[in-house]
Amino acid sequence: MGEEKNLEQMNDLVALCKRRGFIFQSSEIYGGFGSCWDYGPLGIQLKTNVRDSWWKAMTYRDDIEGLDASILMHPEVWKASGHVDNFSDPLVDCKSCKSRFRADQIDTEAPCPSCKAERQFTSPREFNLMFQTRAGPVEDSASKLYLRPETAQGIFTNFQNVQQTMRKKLPFGIAQVGKAFRNEITPGHFIFRTREFEQMEMQYFIRPGDQKAAMDQWKEERLDWHLGQGLRQEKLRFHEHGPNELAHYADKAFDIEYEFPIGWQEVEGIHSRTDFDLKQHEKHCKKNLHYVDQGDGNKKYLPYVLETSVGLDRHLLSLLCDAYRIDHVGTKEERTVLKLAKTMAPIKAAVMPLMKKAPLEEKAQKLLKDIQKHFRTEYDVSGSIGKRYRRQDEIGTPFCLTVDYESLEDGAVTVRDRDSMAQERVALDKALAYLRERLP
Amino acid sequence: MGEEKNLEQMNDLVALCKRRGFIFQSSEIYGGFGSCWDYGPLGIQLKTNVRDSWWKAMTYRDDIEGLDASILMHPEVWKASGHVDNFSDPLVDCKSCKSRFRADQIDTEAPCPSCKAERQFTSPREFNLMFQTRAGPVEDSASKLYLRPETAQGIFTNFQNVQQTMRKKLPFGIAQVGKAFRNEITPGHFIFRTREFEQMEMQYFIRPGDQKAAMDQWKEERLDWHLGQGLRQEKLRFHEHGPNELAHYADKAFDIEYEFPIGWQEVEGIHSRTDFDLKQHEKHCKKNLHYVDQGDGNKKYLPYVLETSVGLDRHLLSLLCDAYRIDHVGTKEERTVLKLAKTMAPIKAAVMPLMKKAPLEEKAQKLLKDIQKHFRTEYDVSGSIGKRYRRQDEIGTPFCLTVDYESLEDGAVTVRDRDSMAQERVALDKALAYLRERLP
Repeated sequence: MGEEKNLEQMNDLVALCKRRGFIFQSSEIYGGFGSCWDYGPLGIQLKTNVRDSWWKAMTYRDDIEGLDASILMHPEVWKASGHVDNFSDPLVDCKSCKSRFRADQIDTEAPCPSCKAERQFTSPREFNLMFQTRAGPVEDSASKLYLRPETAQGIFTNFQNVQQTMRKKLPFGIAQVGKAFRNEITPGHFIFRTREFEQMEMQYFIRPGDQKAAMDQWKEERLDWHLGQGLRQEKLRFHEHGPNELAHYADKAFDIEYEFPIGWQEVEGIHSRTDFDLKQHEKHCKKNLHYVDQGDGNKKYLPYVLETSVGLDRHLLSLLCDAYRIDHVGTKEERTVLKLAKTMAPIKAAVMPLMKKAPLEEKAQKLLKDIQKHFRTEYDVSGSIGKRYRRQDEIGTPFCLTVDYESLEDGAVTVRDRDSMAQERVALDKALAYLRERLP
Repeated sequence: MGEEKNLEQMNDLVALCKRRGFIFQSSEIYGGFGSCWDYGPLGIQLKTNVRDSWWKAMTYRDDIEGLDASILMHPEVWKASGHVDNFSDPLVDCKSCKSRFRADQIDTEAPCPSCKAERQFTSPREFNLMFQTRAGPVEDSASKLYLRPETAQGIFTNFQNVQQTMRKKLPFGIAQVGKAFRNEITPGHFIFRTREFEQMEMQYFIRPGDQKAAMDQWKEERLDWHLGQGLRQEKLRFHEHGPNELAHYADKAFDIEYEFPIGWQEVEGIHSRTDFDLKQHEKHCKKNLHYVDQGDGNKKYLPYVLETSVGLDRHLLSLLCDAYRIDHVGTKEERTVLKLAKTMAPIKAAVMPLMKKAPLEEKAQKLLKDIQKHFRTEYDVSGSIGKRYRRQDEIGTPFCLTVDYESLEDGAVTVRDRDSMAQERVALDKALAYLRERLP
């Protein structure tokens, strides 16, 4: 596909997300707000399904524990992590119109992109990307704090608490889902890069020297997870960080990239962080964070860390881009269908009485009540059945259950499959079991 | 129970939460951070179970849709809601030692509680409780923004988006779970009042005049939900707001209160908010937010709102306080047991080989693998079985499954129930089904 077609498809998807209640612009009635987004009814259910799937994959096992650290932390945490000193972008101002730009994204020898004045830029200054705020009623410097720019540090500061209270032995991991905030200069591409976003991170604590084995294990496990989410294999790849890309804390790093309409972009980072973070915290908090290895003669050392870090919002964008298809139905008709993995789809089933008639609606309502305690289910009675199918296809609903006049005789419904569009009759009292089998 | 005994029990509970990985102080290695708390492995699983239960109760039905609005919103939202002008506490400073106090919480005619200087207080000044920050690289007033002090406004600003994209008719609700932040002057009582907290809110949009019916409906539904969480009926009550307690937006309000060791306190508010919020937003955003009532001759009006708002953290505290029991076992022994509802318990089962012997551990590991994909399960092999039972009782694990030498012969395990302490033999290949039946 050409670039233009790709962007057109992206725009169509954004429009669908708005029109069908997946994603709205934040504070839209006030003209929107700086690259923040609100998840509508279908968006938050999709997000919840993904989060649950990650949480189960990560914590329903022996070697990983969950955590939920607060967004506001002691400010010293961000000195230790290096964010206060190094988490910044170089900015230049146009001396003529005062517009501000990232020095690494414009040609400072060229005219100002905004007012066209010639080479009127200030020297680059470092601009820290952390949002700042203050706690407590006294406005002195002691109360300055930050909105966390990543969830990882909440895991490192709790390493010893989790290890000791849960009696963990290496290797073990700590998993966390939560919001983080970055005052990005150039956010954009819908929910791909936003100022407020959600991370799903896991830090795996290992013996020094075990980096390679841990990296191999987690590259495989994480790629499998993305595939299990229904993404097409050919749209996923690894990208290894070259020497100039490696973060200051990493001795090796791979990204999982997805081919978005805007090109290949990172959706998850798998980084070997060494003992950088624990060492820094040990230095700054002046406490001993060494692990005592009972399996190795009570040797004391700082564990190394293998991190897996998914951007939940951009992962959702990959799911939506991947699922968005224009299918041909027969020779003349087209349909828009979101081919989400059935377990991820926000609405699992739609119950549709053929017409607005009491006996049909009564049976349909009874079926709805049976199902909707277990699966998010929509009830739709308006328009032709064909139109209603299209409406459900567009939001990725795997199953449509139609109650027709025959249902009053044979106590069965027509179940229509989103992908194959095949239809079969299922007994009303077997409908829940039918869905359960297909939506594990 | 006397007050002293209550506080002692509260302290024991806080100690248990720390020791067993439920709740840690935020940034503890840095000496802790201003009344924020981190949920450890068991705490976040308990929180997740509660959140799921609320989400299903609220959104797995016809008349309520979910939402997830961002924490950072357009600053005008908080002018419209009244938070910029009115969301404040009166503060006084001691002129002598500069300590700051809430004017409504100390006797300003008396000596300073801190330095004992006589009546040295400044006049009260209003201190806004919203955390402020700035977005974008330019530090001008246009970029000032707030961390939301409540989740409700994200629902009001999206009222029209949700109503239209989901084609909802009144009455319908919008439900949301998310973080909110208040720069409280006097936070405290563990996770009861914190600067960063999580709300589970639902705004139910109704026809003007339907307030009473909606209030009656939701009082009943919400109380039932708390009872369904396992709380004891005698520990829950309604408190109606008197004329002096009613917020400026409310024409009627009830709290659901729980009897904590620190006394009766609000865990949920059920407030009739009239059309105050939509009216304010309509005024400030200059858009028409009126609903067109097709069921009533296309009459146009602003819906009224019935709000239900749970503080998730303090609800968790009510669950922990309610579940925390010291039981007598026989005549001599005591045990600490968290009698959480089984569906809420963070760990559902513990698998225990009787001894550290290969054949026992092998069978136990196989059982563990069967179960833990479906239920959070612990594996415990250290100490006597009695000691292991106590360890699981203390964190509320409903079922312990012991693999003993008999298991090698009969292919069965001993399942021990947390509450009754009764034991029964269950076939290994029936263990998962056994748990499924008892943990719906």
